[in-house]
Amino acid sequence: MSTTTPASTPVVPGDLSWVPLREELRGASPYGAPQLDVPVQLNVNENPYGPSPAVVEDVAASVARAATTLNRYPDREFVELRAGLAAYLCAEAGVEVGPAQVWAANGSNEVMLQLLQAFGGPGRTAISFAPTYSMYPEYARDAMTGWVAGRRHDDFSFDLAEAERLIAEHRPSVVLLPSPNNPTGTALPHDVIGTLCELVGDTGVVVIDEAYAEFRRAGTPSALELLPAHRNLVVTRTMSKAFALAGARLGYLAAAPELCDALRVVRLPYHLSAVTQATALAALRHADELLGRVEELRAERDRTVTWLREQGLEVAESDANFVLFGRFADRQDVWQQLLDAGVLIRVTGPEGWLRVSVGTPAEMQAFRSALTAALDTTTEGGGR
Amino acid sequence: MSTTTPASTPVVPGDLSWVPLREELRGASPYGAPQLDVPVQLNVNENPYGPSPAVVEDVAASVARAATTLNRYPDREFVELRAGLAAYLCAEAGVEVGPAQVWAANGSNEVMLQLLQAFGGPGRTAISFAPTYSMYPEYARDAMTGWVAGRRHDDFSFDLAEAERLIAEHRPSVVLLPSPNNPTGTALPHDVIGTLCELVGDTGVVVIDEAYAEFRRAGTPSALELLPAHRNLVVTRTMSKAFALAGARLGYLAAAPELCDALRVVRLPYHLSAVTQATALAALRHADELLGRVEELRAERDRTVTWLREQGLEVAESDANFVLFGRFADRQDVWQQLLDAGVLIRVTGPEGWLRVSVGTPAEMQAFRSALTAALDTTTEGGGR
Repeated sequence: MSTTTPASTPVVPGDLSWVPLREELRGASPYGAPQLDVPVQLNVNENPYGPSPAVVEDVAASVARAATTLNRYPDREFVELRAGLAAYLCAEAGVEVGPAQVWAANGSNEVMLQLLQAFGGPGRTAISFAPTYSMYPEYARDAMTGWVAGRRHDDFSFDLAEAERLIAEHRPSVVLLPSPNNPTGTALPHDVIGTLCELVGDTGVVVIDEAYAEFRRAGTPSALELLPAHRNLVVTRTMSKAFALAGARLGYLAAAPELCDALRVVRLPYHLSAVTQATALAALRHADELLGRVEELRAERDRTVTWLREQGLEVAESDANFVLFGRFADRQDVWQQLLDAGVLIRVTGPEGWLRVSVGTPAEMQAFRSALTAALDTTTEGGGR
Repeated sequence: MSTTTPASTPVVPGDLSWVPLREELRGASPYGAPQLDVPVQLNVNENPYGPSPAVVEDVAASVARAATTLNRYPDREFVELRAGLAAYLCAEAGVEVGPAQVWAANGSNEVMLQLLQAFGGPGRTAISFAPTYSMYPEYARDAMTGWVAGRRHDDFSFDLAEAERLIAEHRPSVVLLPSPNNPTGTALPHDVIGTLCELVGDTGVVVIDEAYAEFRRAGTPSALELLPAHRNLVVTRTMSKAFALAGARLGYLAAAPELCDALRVVRLPYHLSAVTQATALAALRHADELLGRVEELRAERDRTVTWLREQGLEVAESDANFVLFGRFADRQDVWQQLLDAGVLIRVTGPEGWLRVSVGTPAEMQAFRSALTAALDTTTEGGGR
């Protein structure tokens, strides 16, 4: 169990009424789950396994080399990192991806913002399908892009008929879809992605957010396989999850070289620091080790799904390192009871559902104990 | 002389005609000076002095500590870093600045983008006064903010009458002004900044970009002193220049706590990596050493100004670590001659002017030799 996440002291917002904020930002809260110092952190889909001493040593050595010239700006085109990420994708997904097809930024967050700055903007529309990642509308807002959210089926599978209708109506320049979806864990089939790319055509891009792709079950394909067939397809990835590198903030994507070139126009120059580049390169050298835990996490995920169903709960199919489960008449109450027991999970997704990240076996045992106690209370009270 | 800047392999842009770029981005080039592998790099106002072994060691140790929990997201509020930056500003400028008045991001670039995302946007206008930093219109474009550029006087001093007229006409929500100005080196007097803050009032913010402030001459004040008097004043700084940390990408600002809180709404969550926070904190612990070279660079700057004037050139007054000089009938030719001699400077500013960053004494000797040779050629040809 980890207590290593830094405990933040959020700044208490003062009276912002005099501040010349854009009107649509008035009253908005900063995005983010509570950063609480709790023994079992299962709320933001982090990888519970910290880097080994060998990885830590290589990161430090790599940064030390970069630090000798920190007075100089970093390589603006991060050539070595793009090559490293391309090689990794080739190995992970069994596809051909070259360095010119790769782009990276400070977390998938920044990758998404850049995509919307390049392909969205005023007078343009981005669409997604709820329930989905709650940051998406914020990316759109920050890039002053119109936002339309369609719906998924009740079992969280993709509703292609609804998508066809919405794309015809709104002519989106960006379609944003996670696969596996967050917070449901649902992966998209190839034929859906192919159809979406054709429906959107060259008036837009289809962004498949594969932040959790390495956790997909056997037989679930990666959208990377579809890149040769669709030049308007963008597949984003991150080193935050399977790579256990959330603290290093490295998101990236694979797409046609022309789309990567287009992002160079809107990226802030030198957006990737020399330290970030050195850290990511060191992690890539240890990909086998860092990813070695993925198999364990997938098994733990499947055990969690089974156990939750045994408790009589509804559980979404998951190809990710988290599980969405419910439904609760008062999910906030269940969340609070788990928190009181030292287990932090996440209130997200449709009303009545909760999301738990997959941690170590010990952390999942703590989660099961806490949830069992909460279910007993709740059932007695008839709240479920 | 350094040859340590990585030589980039810029991606050759392909045919972007099919790419669904926003219309205003069509044909735009990615921002950035050429990254050339030349012995004497005096083109991007880097600090020529790399960190000492002690600093490198502390950065590596600091990153190694952070790396043990890289699987976790970083402190979203970067509490320790804000406190460290506040303490530094108090010491550097002799002012009172608290952590809640400090904000930071990946380079001043991102600080500026966030300011425009919060206080600019569609239907709003940002203004500056040319000649000035060539990234400013790009920040405005990326935040979909209207852009108006007034003019400075011919000697690059600030034209307050022009500013009054433009502010009354355009009611800008952001005024962006570097002090010292880039690429001219000209600092703004206190009374100009105070008047601008009053003219703009609570309908906007006045951003004084003090990227080069630590190089200011004795008697030139920092705009930080004016913070208590003007709640719409924002003073930005960077660790790229005096701190010799361009590779680490750490920009920051001081302003009213309410303005910092407003930026939390538009910042991407976890925008500052744990590695970046660790690196910046290590550098702050060595502030005395890293800043120790500032005095030498200021003296070298003043010597450069004097020498250039002795050559009969026009030279702008400089409070920064660079000098703008001219005028040349064909500045591109002079730039190329210097490059051929292994000295890379910058073609920027008004037609006929060139900018040289202040390097080590040996680098400035190389610059003087190369320029002397170029001036001989140019004078013979009557080009000047």
